[in-house]
Amino acid sequence: MTEQTIEINLSNNKKEKPNPDQLSFGKVFTDHMFTVSYSEGKGWHEPKVTPYQPITLDPASMVFHYGQTVFEGLKAYLANDGRILLFRPKKNLERLNLSNQRLCIPTIDEELVLSGLKKLLEVDKEWIPNAPGTSLYIRPFIIPTEAFLGVAPSNHYQFMIILSPVGSYYKEGINPVKIYVEDQYVRAVSGGTGKAKTGGNYAASLKAQEGATSRGFSQVLWLDGVEKKYIEEVGSMNIFFKINGEVVTPALNESILEGVTRNSVLQLLKYWEIPVSERKISIEEVFESYSKGLVEEAFGTGTAAVISPVGELSWRGENIVINNGETGTIAKKLYDTLTGIQKGDVTDYFDWTISVDVK
Amino acid sequence: MTEQTIEINLSNNKKEKPNPDQLSFGKVFTDHMFTVSYSEGKGWHEPKVTPYQPITLDPASMVFHYGQTVFEGLKAYLANDGRILLFRPKKNLERLNLSNQRLCIPTIDEELVLSGLKKLLEVDKEWIPNAPGTSLYIRPFIIPTEAFLGVAPSNHYQFMIILSPVGSYYKEGINPVKIYVEDQYVRAVSGGTGKAKTGGNYAASLKAQEGATSRGFSQVLWLDGVEKKYIEEVGSMNIFFKINGEVVTPALNESILEGVTRNSVLQLLKYWEIPVSERKISIEEVFESYSKGLVEEAFGTGTAAVISPVGELSWRGENIVINNGETGTIAKKLYDTLTGIQKGDVTDYFDWTISVDVK
Ligand SMILES: Cc1ncc(COP(=O)(O)O)c(C=O)c1O
Ligand SMILES: Cc1ncc(COP(=O)(O)O)c(C=O)c1O
Repeated sequence: MTEQTIEINLSNNKKEKPNPDQLSFGKVFTDHMFTVSYSEGKGWHEPKVTPYQPITLDPASMVFHYGQTVFEGLKAYLANDGRILLFRPKKNLERLNLSNQRLCIPTIDEELVLSGLKKLLEVDKEWIPNAPGTSLYIRPFIIPTEAFLGVAPSNHYQFMIILSPVGSYYKEGINPVKIYVEDQYVRAVSGGTGKAKTGGNYAASLKAQEGATSRGFSQVLWLDGVEKKYIEEVGSMNIFFKINGEVVTPALNESILEGVTRNSVLQLLKYWEIPVSERKISIEEVFESYSKGLVEEAFGTGTAAVISPVGELSWRGENIVINNGETGTIAKKLYDTLTGIQKGDVTDYFDWTISVDVK
Repeated sequence: MTEQTIEINLSNNKKEKPNPDQLSFGKVFTDHMFTVSYSEGKGWHEPKVTPYQPITLDPASMVFHYGQTVFEGLKAYLANDGRILLFRPKKNLERLNLSNQRLCIPTIDEELVLSGLKKLLEVDKEWIPNAPGTSLYIRPFIIPTEAFLGVAPSNHYQFMIILSPVGSYYKEGINPVKIYVEDQYVRAVSGGTGKAKTGGNYAASLKAQEGATSRGFSQVLWLDGVEKKYIEEVGSMNIFFKINGEVVTPALNESILEGVTRNSVLQLLKYWEIPVSERKISIEEVFESYSKGLVEEAFGTGTAAVISPVGELSWRGENIVINNGETGTIAKKLYDTLTGIQKGDVTDYFDWTISVDVK
């Protein structure tokens, strides 16, 4: 793709910023957004930063009917020295294009998107909160906009990035969460769309999440869709267990989302020389190991919560309390290291962060 | 729900109607639409017929991110005596509410929707084409509109009905189609959302459809997501085979959409005393029966195409030509009977059609 110029159109109507102590997740949005349009023949074109504004679409637009959408989620942090730091954004943009391929959406130039994101962050820099645990959540997404009711890939799309200053994702913060192992509903199956970050996977998860919530659990742990035996992932996190001295996480397959945090955790554990493996792991193995006193820790990993210790797991009416319901040593160390690197407070051994130059 | 008054707001800007000989599927829409809003506390409210107009939504609206959508598809016909006929609309509205339940969307009053649809048809009556094979396609759908990035059911929804005058769904018309049996990608799995009419199922199907099209097939036949062995359905049709004198269709399960046309075909076959059964049927059984010369017919059933004979099936590189690639006797009889009832030309033994009174 030839270099495209990003047009910038600033808002003269600045919104009031939220109180930094009262940030929740994904409810408040900044003053601007970044958009790129796609149409057959023209390709991705007209990259621009504009005031945050409503989208106007024909009621027959495909996004309202056939779920051909993809999205991403990453964060920007304000370092204490004033730099804006992005955590491994290229991993998210690579994954966006993997999702695009699965959903028959034309891939987008990752460099262009990264430039657009940087310009957007420059413009909305004042929206990045600084207090511990806070950050600016970045939501890139693509919607099909063609007005046509045939079931087919759209010929028109809109790519957008919106920004939202956020506090902790779970109301528990870094405190352990209670997780319900779902053995009726299925989120994704081999041959399906689980590996892609597409709306339908999340729509499919709502019913089970509702059940888990009503039983007093904060998240669902999904099992494979074929045998309902092997552990896959949590609602919006990958999952790790420390069993008998070794950290284990389910090996990637077609129905698990490859988390950027998961990948970072694996690298850190190897760097620290903590035994770790990616393999198939059944829910039975976890419960059996627990009965032998071998389950030392469990935690989820994801952009929103970073590291989320699991204090309790419930499967088929049996509940197990892990590490006395307290945050484990490894979960704590990972959380401190990752959030430290993200904020620029801890040495970034792996060159994970990208600093956005503000002119 | 107490009776709600449907507000009517007519358009003064009538669009030009398409040439009845050049109707395609789902590209042209009428002058009006019917909408009902939902918000927490208020429930479904403000039913109204308004000019067909764009929808304006915040970029953070859930519909753009998490696929919590449902839809329906049915048709209105203009009888030769001038009456507007609807084919079994209550079945579609029942199914809409089943889909709602699976997707954690509040159910909607079916009577209210039917009244709204009738009002809308009255207003846009002139848009209903009359030529053979044409009809007015009706698309009810629900989208989540809350601006919030948490993965949770929305607190706000919009229900809408839009109308589109249509010709034949497949360019082949009633002529036989070539179908590719998909054994890599999966549309839906037990425990998933296959039984619901929700966007994600269709998004998941695009990649396989793309492959089938590039190989010269017009549709995909889906197998079960667990063993990839049992036949489920076609992209937007249920499937029937006539094997050794008996008509067989896959029994309903959690991953098959219960088609209104499927149900009507089953009733007609029973009425005609043609042997018919709903049961598990493997793709192997079909190919084995074929090699013994026992596969007499195959056809798909769905609102868009009504009956679509299958002339050729391809599975794992093996192609079989059914009934010499010609429309079978039963497919033809079903097509003539169903379209005849729908148009008011054939006695409606089952009271399937509802006539809309126009004042
Ligand atoms: C289904 C699912 N699994 C895992 C993750 C974790 O991925 P990441 O670490 O890239 O945020 C997410 C969230 O992005 C998710 O939605
Ligand atoms: C996946 C799927 N299966 C089957 C059908 C056929 O259902 P109906 O006969 O109600 O149109 C449809 C279309 O509505 C569909 O989308």
